[in-house]
Amino acid sequence: MPKAKTKAQKAVMFDRVAFIGIGHIGSSMALAMRRAGVVESIIACDRSAKHRKAALKLKIVDEVTADYAKAVKGADLVVIATPVGTNAAIAKAIAPHLKPGTIVTDVGSVKQVVIAAITPHIPKGVYFVPGHPLAGTEHSGPEAGLADLFDGRWAVLTPLPRTPAKVLAKVSTLWKRMGANVDTMTPAHHDRVLAITSHLPHLCAFTVVGTATDLAEDLKQEVIKYSASGFRDFTRVAASDPVMWRDIFLANREAVLEILQRFTEDLAGMQKHIRRGDGAALEKMFTRTRAIRRGIIEAKQA
Amino acid sequence: MPKAKTKAQKAVMFDRVAFIGIGHIGSSMALAMRRAGVVESIIACDRSAKHRKAALKLKIVDEVTADYAKAVKGADLVVIATPVGTNAAIAKAIAPHLKPGTIVTDVGSVKQVVIAAITPHIPKGVYFVPGHPLAGTEHSGPEAGLADLFDGRWAVLTPLPRTPAKVLAKVSTLWKRMGANVDTMTPAHHDRVLAITSHLPHLCAFTVVGTATDLAEDLKQEVIKYSASGFRDFTRVAASDPVMWRDIFLANREAVLEILQRFTEDLAGMQKHIRRGDGAALEKMFTRTRAIRRGIIEAKQA
Repeated sequence: MPKAKTKAQKAVMFDRVAFIGIGHIGSSMALAMRRAGVVESIIACDRSAKHRKAALKLKIVDEVTADYAKAVKGADLVVIATPVGTNAAIAKAIAPHLKPGTIVTDVGSVKQVVIAAITPHIPKGVYFVPGHPLAGTEHSGPEAGLADLFDGRWAVLTPLPRTPAKVLAKVSTLWKRMGANVDTMTPAHHDRVLAITSHLPHLCAFTVVGTATDLAEDLKQEVIKYSASGFRDFTRVAASDPVMWRDIFLANREAVLEILQRFTEDLAGMQKHIRRGDGAALEKMFTRTRAIRRGIIEAKQA
Repeated sequence: MPKAKTKAQKAVMFDRVAFIGIGHIGSSMALAMRRAGVVESIIACDRSAKHRKAALKLKIVDEVTADYAKAVKGADLVVIATPVGTNAAIAKAIAPHLKPGTIVTDVGSVKQVVIAAITPHIPKGVYFVPGHPLAGTEHSGPEAGLADLFDGRWAVLTPLPRTPAKVLAKVSTLWKRMGANVDTMTPAHHDRVLAITSHLPHLCAFTVVGTATDLAEDLKQEVIKYSASGFRDFTRVAASDPVMWRDIFLANREAVLEILQRFTEDLAGMQKHIRRGDGAALEKMFTRTRAIRRGIIEAKQA
């Protein structure tokens, strides 16, 4: 039998939440907030008329608008959930319309660049808490919104030195009520961790699928036909939103180039083992990677 | 209401099937054969006492042995389902004990090298039909056997010029009754297609996870913790059997090195775009890869 909910678990946390961008992550957050009963009303601002229409039709939000000022007016929480390249312009556009005490947060996959883009525009008395939920599918748009997307996944917060403890605690509680586990780290550390856990794998997947795209037409048709085992998983990853990923690689350039350098060296090592027919070296390499997988299974992130 | 089975659909095709190797693929085939009712009795030969014990306990096979001669004696179908590096020695060991009319097939992920290893040992009157089911998980051993592993997946046969049409047709029917779609192609073409659809993605995954393995311990713990989205899929691929993959890369060296060369050039191109901050080029690359994914979805292999 489920335990009776405590008052804190049921409590509404925000009267009005404004989403800037109501794509896959924004709509999933809106649904998770509703599921948790943390919000009274939700408005979404999106440049795409198709997104606005879908978000309204699917009852993900109560209102939609294409106007930044209208969206954030009266909101006590603003969630920026657009490709990170847009963040500076958005922060500038919404800034004059934010009321004192409002919390602004984001979901960007890189944090240092996002903080540099948003922070200068945040008015006095408004709090910016940078965040990044480590969840998502390869799908885009409000139709891909899932209320349980964050259940059991990590949401990483990278608070600024001046973020008040109680504001950080509030955003942390919000994520927990949306189903996530919450951790905090510095923006620089976040960007390094994500370069290896997310950006490098995506770059490999985009590149492998790109290499296949250049194959002769007859071979390409067979690559599609026989994609089971390996390639298929890569195409799923490589089907992710191109604009979002363009912005991530531009925004996390330093960390990505550093890890890419290591990867390229390691790949050259593999290539050498294959060319030389060094089976012992290959087996050693393939065996040690199993330990990482076991770690992930033990950490219940498999 | 399901249609009544025709006689052909119910018919036993083989009196006695011998598996050389009863790991993930061998045990899945044994289970699929039983499900389809194509075989009277199954014996498995495996070097691993653990595998033999599990295959018997899980009722995947009727008998087990560590002796090649005993395994293939009286068998009218022999399935070699071991890492490809073992195939020459196995073919040599079983050859004297094969009765005329027996069909030998295999499941190796490369075909040219396997054919070169097995064919010289096949006695007159015995038929070798090289095969490769494009299915599998990252798990190993008989405990990972799945009766429905091949349902809707492709089984590729690469018949030899001298393979009689009715023998090829029989192996083709066997795979269809195990749930697979069947296609035939030349061994060389198979090895090129698999280099891009399977071997290159696996090499990337092994390498990315290997690169992560070399990270400082504190960073590595966080890579495990925050593996959602991208990296986690790679670790699953990279958890595949090290000996099997060692043998694949050694056996398909030429095709793998050729596609690896293309990939390395493409990756260097991506790196240049990132370093230069060329967002338009990145977006273009990331957009075109979506077409391949759509092809896979349309081909119902997603």
